[in-house]
Amino acid sequence: MPQEFSYEIVEEIAVLSTNPKEWTKELNLVSWNGRPPKFDLRDWAPGHEKMGKGITLTNEEFEELVKTIKEM
Amino acid sequence: MPQEFSYEIVEEIAVLSTNPKEWTKELNLVSWNGRPPKFDLRDWAPGHEKMGKGITLTNEEFEELVKTIKEM
Repeated sequence: MPQEFSYEIVEEIAVLSTNPKEWTKELNLVSWNGRPPKFDLRDWAPGHEKMGKGITLTNEEFEELVKTIKEM
Repeated sequence: MPQEFSYEIVEEIAVLSTNPKEWTKELNLVSWNGRPPKFDLRDWAPGHEKMGKGITLTNEEFEELVKTIKEM
């Protein structure tokens, strides 16, 4: 049976790149199925009409990433 | 026909989290098919025996991410 899911981009934090087809790699805060938003690194079609591959980070994972980057 | 690919974890930069099954979410430098390494955020099975979902960032994308995080 098809599963439904919803998402909402709560905050557009940064666009990391744009490819020749105008897809963008973005860091956003995304709420999945109405849950509290998580940090999300993902490719998006123009206007966020389609989503590509990406990875979601919890607050704790994002904090570790921030810590790592600040120490690099 | 099956496609072969190779990868080598050139540098283990950080482990962002470990889940109850001991899979880890990691930031690494990974070389794919012998090409120059890229930054890679991904889930891995213990000992890097299997890879899960993740996202690869070019140097330019990673620099944007670093810039974004340092400005947050």
